[in-house]
Amino acid sequence: MLTLYYAPNTCALASHIALEQAGAKYETRRIDFGKTEQRSAEYMKVNPKGRVPALFTGRGILTETPAILAFVAQSYPDAKLAPLDDPFAFAQVQAFNSYLCSTVHVAHAHRMRGTRWADDPAAIEAMKKKVPQSVGDCFGLIEREMLKGPWVMGAAYTVCDMYLFTLANWLEGDGVDIGRFPKLRDHRSRMAADPVVARVVAAESTVPA
Amino acid sequence: MLTLYYAPNTCALASHIALEQAGAKYETRRIDFGKTEQRSAEYMKVNPKGRVPALFTGRGILTETPAILAFVAQSYPDAKLAPLDDPFAFAQVQAFNSYLCSTVHVAHAHRMRGTRWADDPAAIEAMKKKVPQSVGDCFGLIEREMLKGPWVMGAAYTVCDMYLFTLANWLEGDGVDIGRFPKLRDHRSRMAADPVVARVVAAESTVPA
Repeated sequence: MLTLYYAPNTCALASHIALEQAGAKYETRRIDFGKTEQRSAEYMKVNPKGRVPALFTGRGILTETPAILAFVAQSYPDAKLAPLDDPFAFAQVQAFNSYLCSTVHVAHAHRMRGTRWADDPAAIEAMKKKVPQSVGDCFGLIEREMLKGPWVMGAAYTVCDMYLFTLANWLEGDGVDIGRFPKLRDHRSRMAADPVVARVVAAESTVPA
Repeated sequence: MLTLYYAPNTCALASHIALEQAGAKYETRRIDFGKTEQRSAEYMKVNPKGRVPALFTGRGILTETPAILAFVAQSYPDAKLAPLDDPFAFAQVQAFNSYLCSTVHVAHAHRMRGTRWADDPAAIEAMKKKVPQSVGDCFGLIEREMLKGPWVMGAAYTVCDMYLFTLANWLEGDGVDIGRFPKLRDHRSRMAADPVVARVVAAESTVPA
């Protein structure tokens, strides 16, 4: 049995959708960021990075969205979530996911997590101010150069779509109008309407009793 | 024939070492960052991100270090650069490389590339100031939790070692004393002494005529 540690409104949504789409047997544990539970002694034993997602498997913990997505795709090959038998096509999937984690998510994080990179409050404000531009530039590049359509990798629906959908949900909060990006807007709408995606989004939105 | 676009003192070194170690047939093209060649119209056609590394293959361009490293490992399985037949072990490799690209390299980049995330010169200075701490924290986590020893993944030498070596070379420039991390210091020394690594480092250090 797999266990996904997640928090709502984080990039863990991508791994959650992948597990559901793969038909994996898994359970979830919600980490309460409001109570800084990701930094609790108990959770730091699970993931010493103090972040989500983390996926507990019988053999140990996996972290980092691109790694978890590739693991789910390789572990459930019948779900066809990535081109597993073609190193070049698989690398294109990895390259897209790598760009999301190292550049897009990082640009976004400068709005809420500036203390990772500066202590001065004025600097943290200056970072927030640039987020609409830096995040907008990233999604502009995705729109122009990366999103082949209808899915990220073209005809095949892959883990890239789940990860892109997850980060695209943050655009309004980052002060970026998705209307600037017609292909992305259409992609996000189609993802939101997918029954598997909708089920996972609803599960994450349900406040536990 | 593969073509690696690289610049000295960048993370492209990891991909360069992997190609050499794999025994791949490849040529290199040096991009002159001093002349901002990575932003030239010609190079932007190769890689619209305006960054290195980029690997030209017969089927197109690959970017992002974790993707290129996995591609080289999968394309040259005899070189045994990653555990290709074990999704969990492969995901551990991916998770390590993902941490390097999304957290360690990003922490480092706040020293020289602060304009990506703020416009105010004072904010850019504030970012620089925090680099010794943020980069030091990353390598502290690697030393404590990730570097199994003697290699990153334990007994097996993998692409993770090449990538870690590449980023560890930046520690002094980032104001971090590698002496704080005995396992890392030993790892870097062993990597530097490896004949394949030494050959690639020497090739990148040679100034073209």
